[in-house]
Amino acid sequence: MVKIVIDCFGGDNSPGVNIEGSIDALGKYKDLEVVLVGDEQKIKDELAKQNYSSDRISIVHAPDVIGCNEKPTEAVRKKKDSSLMTGIRLLREDDSLAGLVSIGSTGAIVAATTLRIGRVPGVARPTLCPMLPTMKKGKIVGVCDSGATVDCTPVQLYQFAIMGSLYMEKVFGVKSPKVALLNVGVEEEKGDELRKEVYQMLKNEPRVNFVGNMEARDLLKGDVDLVVCDGFSGNVMCKTVEGTAIEMFRMMKRDIMSSLKHKIGALFLKKMFAKERAFLDYQNYGGSVLLGASKVVVKGHGSSNRTSFAKCIEQAYMMETGNLNPELSKILSEKKEDNGDV
Amino acid sequence: MVKIVIDCFGGDNSPGVNIEGSIDALGKYKDLEVVLVGDEQKIKDELAKQNYSSDRISIVHAPDVIGCNEKPTEAVRKKKDSSLMTGIRLLREDDSLAGLVSIGSTGAIVAATTLRIGRVPGVARPTLCPMLPTMKKGKIVGVCDSGATVDCTPVQLYQFAIMGSLYMEKVFGVKSPKVALLNVGVEEEKGDELRKEVYQMLKNEPRVNFVGNMEARDLLKGDVDLVVCDGFSGNVMCKTVEGTAIEMFRMMKRDIMSSLKHKIGALFLKKMFAKERAFLDYQNYGGSVLLGASKVVVKGHGSSNRTSFAKCIEQAYMMETGNLNPELSKILSEKKEDNGDV
Repeated sequence: MVKIVIDCFGGDNSPGVNIEGSIDALGKYKDLEVVLVGDEQKIKDELAKQNYSSDRISIVHAPDVIGCNEKPTEAVRKKKDSSLMTGIRLLREDDSLAGLVSIGSTGAIVAATTLRIGRVPGVARPTLCPMLPTMKKGKIVGVCDSGATVDCTPVQLYQFAIMGSLYMEKVFGVKSPKVALLNVGVEEEKGDELRKEVYQMLKNEPRVNFVGNMEARDLLKGDVDLVVCDGFSGNVMCKTVEGTAIEMFRMMKRDIMSSLKHKIGALFLKKMFAKERAFLDYQNYGGSVLLGASKVVVKGHGSSNRTSFAKCIEQAYMMETGNLNPELSKILSEKKEDNGDV
Repeated sequence: MVKIVIDCFGGDNSPGVNIEGSIDALGKYKDLEVVLVGDEQKIKDELAKQNYSSDRISIVHAPDVIGCNEKPTEAVRKKKDSSLMTGIRLLREDDSLAGLVSIGSTGAIVAATTLRIGRVPGVARPTLCPMLPTMKKGKIVGVCDSGATVDCTPVQLYQFAIMGSLYMEKVFGVKSPKVALLNVGVEEEKGDELRKEVYQMLKNEPRVNFVGNMEARDLLKGDVDLVVCDGFSGNVMCKTVEGTAIEMFRMMKRDIMSSLKHKIGALFLKKMFAKERAFLDYQNYGGSVLLGASKVVVKGHGSSNRTSFAKCIEQAYMMETGNLNPELSKILSEKKEDNGDV
């Protein structure tokens, strides 16, 4: 049995989507078990609405919720009875639990995992890895780090490459994933001191299929499987993609509404626009995983729907059954022995 | 007279657009003089095609050109007879020359300026400031630094805010420009050590209208006039906007061509799409200026056309007539005396 803790609150449509997604995932994986955490009555009310039959669901009561606008470190310390912190406590204390899925505050999830769950032996810092769509059919790209570690050392970035690469292989089935280093230019000597050092480390690492530097303008082309970056610039890149897409669709909508001719044209393209909007919405590509944490933690988008929540559980399930953490620990501990400074 | 050096080569459509743009700018400003630098015969051939009458044009011969794919520091050292390096030499040696406009290699322009022209007294490092469009009508936003200084100290970022703010005021007429610090969240305590320190410096600086942190997803909203960032993340942000816009238009084109129904709809929207594409193309908002260099240097987009090249000259003209550098020097030298560590 693979047992996953579900934080049932904290999302825009919680607990509805959390519970619906759990039921879908239980239907797909017969060796999956979920522990629903949150206000017991509300969870029971929601379950009563559903059409399901499973003895692989249990509930743990937690009356409180961490909001998205709360200061993460403070919320993590003070709101011990929140659904997230109760879930994290269960995860830490119960060895039979494999992981946790939440669509609550990213900051709180990262802080709680870092403080309470700890890291895989050998991992210097965890990295938050979301998946983004690309223009190549069916191809997605992982970005790590997207904000868990904003002040990075070369060793940390180097480890992000190893962790992300293994993740792409185990969870998305990408063989020998192409890994690029985010930089201000493609040439080897480009960038700040951090990038120059990481470039050399990755160039000499046989476990990583390192394809060199990548400029941010090429992210969506789909030429690589994983982009390695510090949490600051990774966060900037992901949010710029999101913001640019949102503002472009907003601009088009405004321009369409401004003239009858445009409105007529848009009628022909309505479905196309809707499809494109969904295509660019990164919540449709699963959650961000916190790689390097000693148990599996998946953070879904706050506005996740039933399908995307189920996908997050699926990711957690794949990470656990794919033995990601044990392999990671093996590789990074080996590296430590190989080379004192890594 | 305001005398500007024009690097006539290095762009996609050089020397044509460089010379056409110069003629337009000369028509607009009667106290402007230009020094065209590059292969003399080619410049003369191009001038012969034009309909103009001006005694405010001179030519300085330079047979060589620095290409966009050359290693900047090497090209700057070796290609002394290139149009760029000849222009830079003139600028350094002749006090009557106010500035230089080029649409050649950004790296070479930044390196040449840094090495040969030097900085305004009091300026720690120069910053490259491009202008981006926003969704607010008629509003553009400056980003500094976009890549001139990739390893930044707090003092440098703080100075970028002062320089960019003065630039927005002098050249674009923005009164009390709203300045934001690019960060991973809006709260005061967010970000890495660099951001935390810069936040405090800007908060306590009466010369800057500091509005706090900004997330990258809000860049195009148009709520602020200037975004301050290190050259690495600024470069990532600008290139992500560019790449996302390009890929989205490419995706739409592909989807439109895939069905007759879409093709019909697109006929109604053809002009709208073209307008939007031009709107998002940042070359239509003038060049990037290298703030903090002791003479005015403007770098236009490599694919500049006649109009955008003329705009770059206009920017250089405004910086000079607006006394940007003398004022900058005054402010930053004062600050130095106020506060030893700044």
